[in-house]
Amino acid sequence: MKILVDVLGGDNAPKAVIEGAISALNKKKDLELALVGPKKEIEEAFNKAKIDPSRYEIIESNEAVLNTDHPSLFIKEKPSCSMALAFEELRKRDDLGGFVSAGPTGALLTGAILRIGRIQGVARPCLMATIPTRTEKLCRVLDAGANMDCKPEYLYQFAVMADTYLKVLGEEKPRIATLSVGQEEGKGNEVSKAAYELLKASELNFVGNIEGDHVLKGEADIVVCDGFSGNVFLKSLEEACYYISDKFKAAIFKNIFTKLAALTMIKGLKNVKKPFEYANKASAPLLGCKKLVLKCHGKAKPEAFEAGILEAALLAEKGLLKQIEDNLKI
Amino acid sequence: MKILVDVLGGDNAPKAVIEGAISALNKKKDLELALVGPKKEIEEAFNKAKIDPSRYEIIESNEAVLNTDHPSLFIKEKPSCSMALAFEELRKRDDLGGFVSAGPTGALLTGAILRIGRIQGVARPCLMATIPTRTEKLCRVLDAGANMDCKPEYLYQFAVMADTYLKVLGEEKPRIATLSVGQEEGKGNEVSKAAYELLKASELNFVGNIEGDHVLKGEADIVVCDGFSGNVFLKSLEEACYYISDKFKAAIFKNIFTKLAALTMIKGLKNVKKPFEYANKASAPLLGCKKLVLKCHGKAKPEAFEAGILEAALLAEKGLLKQIEDNLKI
Repeated sequence: MKILVDVLGGDNAPKAVIEGAISALNKKKDLELALVGPKKEIEEAFNKAKIDPSRYEIIESNEAVLNTDHPSLFIKEKPSCSMALAFEELRKRDDLGGFVSAGPTGALLTGAILRIGRIQGVARPCLMATIPTRTEKLCRVLDAGANMDCKPEYLYQFAVMADTYLKVLGEEKPRIATLSVGQEEGKGNEVSKAAYELLKASELNFVGNIEGDHVLKGEADIVVCDGFSGNVFLKSLEEACYYISDKFKAAIFKNIFTKLAALTMIKGLKNVKKPFEYANKASAPLLGCKKLVLKCHGKAKPEAFEAGILEAALLAEKGLLKQIEDNLKI
Repeated sequence: MKILVDVLGGDNAPKAVIEGAISALNKKKDLELALVGPKKEIEEAFNKAKIDPSRYEIIESNEAVLNTDHPSLFIKEKPSCSMALAFEELRKRDDLGGFVSAGPTGALLTGAILRIGRIQGVARPCLMATIPTRTEKLCRVLDAGANMDCKPEYLYQFAVMADTYLKVLGEEKPRIATLSVGQEEGKGNEVSKAAYELLKASELNFVGNIEGDHVLKGEADIVVCDGFSGNVFLKSLEEACYYISDKFKAAIFKNIFTKLAALTMIKGLKNVKKPFEYANKASAPLLGCKKLVLKCHGKAKPEAFEAGILEAALLAEKGLLKQIEDNLKI
């Protein structure tokens, strides 16, 4: 199983990517990597870590796509940047089980759709985000922002793809919901209401409409929506969490007395952060392309790259893409 | 100036509404009220508070609309409920400057649109919510959920109506933004992108696209969006705040030691809540109907009713509705 890795993607590249790649190779003994990035730096680190040279290859690149690059023009404008070279490899080779990158989302999405293409039957590939809930379980939200305007059929397909993904990972009957403005049937906009009908009539384990509070209560494993409201939903969740965290921190660390008092709470306060750290580690799969593409967080640390690479390998071994294709045919 | 009040709307009705109404009458000496609700209870409380009987009238009703009632059928099914009677008064009388209710949002919206009708030139009335930011300033978000599917022109009109509202309240050049998934021009869905163009070409103080984090940073006074994503945005902000608050509280009040330590932080911790309490006090105006309608929070306490009634009186005195009509003509 060989996974392609963009060594120049993300704020902490290349160091964090290289470290994560080495950890992944150490954890999974039959894993092989194709690394797109600075040859010398990768070789030095891999030699130092005593990685068997037969387990990796390097495609040299010394240029990264930036957030300021145009997401659909970067391939033409920066043909030797790591992401453009990676898509070229994915397009022409059959031995690569997946691609992991923390590069800009727009470039990754557009590049994947233009250069790799869609699985037969997929109307629109989409990005799946993972968020924590008040329970132990995580929740998947899609589309997280790949498709601003969606038809109801797209939402239905998002549900099928996420359902396949969770089943591949061992979840038995993922609970699927449509993001809406009320729980009752008939609430929502035209797209969400029509998607509700499609999902209700399907074989999927559809649990109906869901609102933000019930998402956080862990009442669904998969929440489908158009990419505009999905993105609005995810970003406002994240930002409200920072907002309130900052307010609590200001109260807790206000002066020397409160700081001393905070010492008694250290363990508990660390736990507040935990669910978010876990969710940040999760990569966001781009579902529906002919090759598996996993987006790591722009601020991803080595553990996140390790987790992303291992997840890509696992999903490739389990044949996720083939199963998505089969399930969409039904 | 006479304001109509639904004494039976909200979880804390009628007691909280009656208390709020009495405070409002005590604060504003030229205010008069028309109260729809239980006659005996209102009279007893108003007599006890020594309110001059010439300052209020009572329209008797002993039945409330419930969340379970159908928002467009309740007027037919419960013709003597407080909200149905209130709309009847609003429709037939000219001396009422506005209507304040904490009853179910759906019923209030539908009732207002069906029974009162729109200001000439208004395509769709909408609900405007108020949220706190990291600064001292509040932010207005509309549509908060009255119109699930919107045309770009509706968003433009929402901006004009909110702009008029804030100017009436003394704000000089309200900063208006379109809710989107990125700040750059060209980000968003079809509706938000077209609304961007309309606003950019207008005389309004349009500051471009905005995302959740910048809304919380207080970078806009007015954020316009369709009612579906607006509702998703507002609810996820609120729920994420509760979610993180609960996590912090669990850490802070974990055991006797942390509880004692928390004593040093009491004042600071109270401040965390403040912006939300302030925002909860704000009523949500339904903009665009021929009569001014203010929705109080379902959990509104006496101060919120007082604030809502005084705001309705102020907006009526300043001639908000006439100004909206004039500004939409331009």
